[in-house]
Amino acid sequence: MPRLSVREQLIDAAYDHIHEHGFAGSGVKDITDAAGVPKGSFYNHFDSKEAMAVEVMRRYSADQGTEILTDRSKAPLERIREHFAYVTGRLEHFAYARGCMIGNLGAELSAQNSAILEAVDRSLTCWVTRLAAALDEARAAGTLANPVDGLALAQFLVNAWEGAAMRAKISKSRTPLDDFSAVFESLAAVAVAPPSPTGPARPTTPETVR
Amino acid sequence: MPRLSVREQLIDAAYDHIHEHGFAGSGVKDITDAAGVPKGSFYNHFDSKEAMAVEVMRRYSADQGTEILTDRSKAPLERIREHFAYVTGRLEHFAYARGCMIGNLGAELSAQNSAILEAVDRSLTCWVTRLAAALDEARAAGTLANPVDGLALAQFLVNAWEGAAMRAKISKSRTPLDDFSAVFESLAAVAVAPPSPTGPARPTTPETVR
Repeated sequence: MPRLSVREQLIDAAYDHIHEHGFAGSGVKDITDAAGVPKGSFYNHFDSKEAMAVEVMRRYSADQGTEILTDRSKAPLERIREHFAYVTGRLEHFAYARGCMIGNLGAELSAQNSAILEAVDRSLTCWVTRLAAALDEARAAGTLANPVDGLALAQFLVNAWEGAAMRAKISKSRTPLDDFSAVFESLAAVAVAPPSPTGPARPTTPETVR
Repeated sequence: MPRLSVREQLIDAAYDHIHEHGFAGSGVKDITDAAGVPKGSFYNHFDSKEAMAVEVMRRYSADQGTEILTDRSKAPLERIREHFAYVTGRLEHFAYARGCMIGNLGAELSAQNSAILEAVDRSLTCWVTRLAAALDEARAAGTLANPVDGLALAQFLVNAWEGAAMRAKISKSRTPLDDFSAVFESLAAVAVAPPSPTGPARPTTPETVR
């Protein structure tokens, strides 16, 4: 296996450190120490810690499994379930304790780190766009009847998932992500209750579920 | 007006600074400078920056308007709408750019700041408990038919609102909070579609809304 370049070693170390400790909690020296390179070498490869975080965000986002949402070999709701199971699996890998880097950086940073926030925004926009297309396909297929339009519903769901990831991180538990899935199913299930010819259709089952 | 004690001046300054810059982004010197007191005085009043942040979190949480959820003079869904409008107003006060301190700290901090995360968790638990009670009342009143139980639905909604607050902060826009409200209405509206004696009930209107 070829040795990683110093730049790649720095990015790998930063990816890991920022995910666990946040942006402000990750000093240049923390990152160069973790990468096993001299601190002075950092600025040979990046103009700033912020520029490096933008690259880290781009890579985290590329690993977010949004391509699952566009796989037309599967029914759209199946793809959506599979995608959210995939991103939940990313959190499970760290026992939920690290949260999602996208939401972590979005919540931590302020306008002073606008380049990183723009990278976070691009990541969320790509995710939402693909989810909205899958929701629109589900609606066209008759498996989603929620009246909110696909784009607004996708925005809501991505934000709701990020909120659930944050709570999972605090509680080190997958329960918030299971709650997300249960409510997502309730949003989708409205459509599949078949209209009854013999009486009024019930939009949902009367039992509560958890 | 009586002069604030140094301790109160420090808490006020920290509340503001942490809301805007996060925990790691708020040094003791930033806080003492903003309070106009000598840096050395900080440790006369607090054992650590973390202990001070726990007190700040407690105060932020007390201002979260959860008492609106328990006002039995109003219908439960009205209270829920009013409460979310109130917390959205808190974000609007800073043009959405600061987000919600509860979610910001939850997303920023890791297990190394467990006392603050416990304060965040207490804040969310209090909020969820009151929201779950209002949702259960709405269900008993026949104005909420979503099949997910009140506690899981309340957990979901609080997390979803926190995710929306995070996105509103990134985009400096209230659209994510409007999307939250639209989907909340779609969750609630399922119940109020009257069963039709002449044909199958439609659980929702066919038009998409935004």
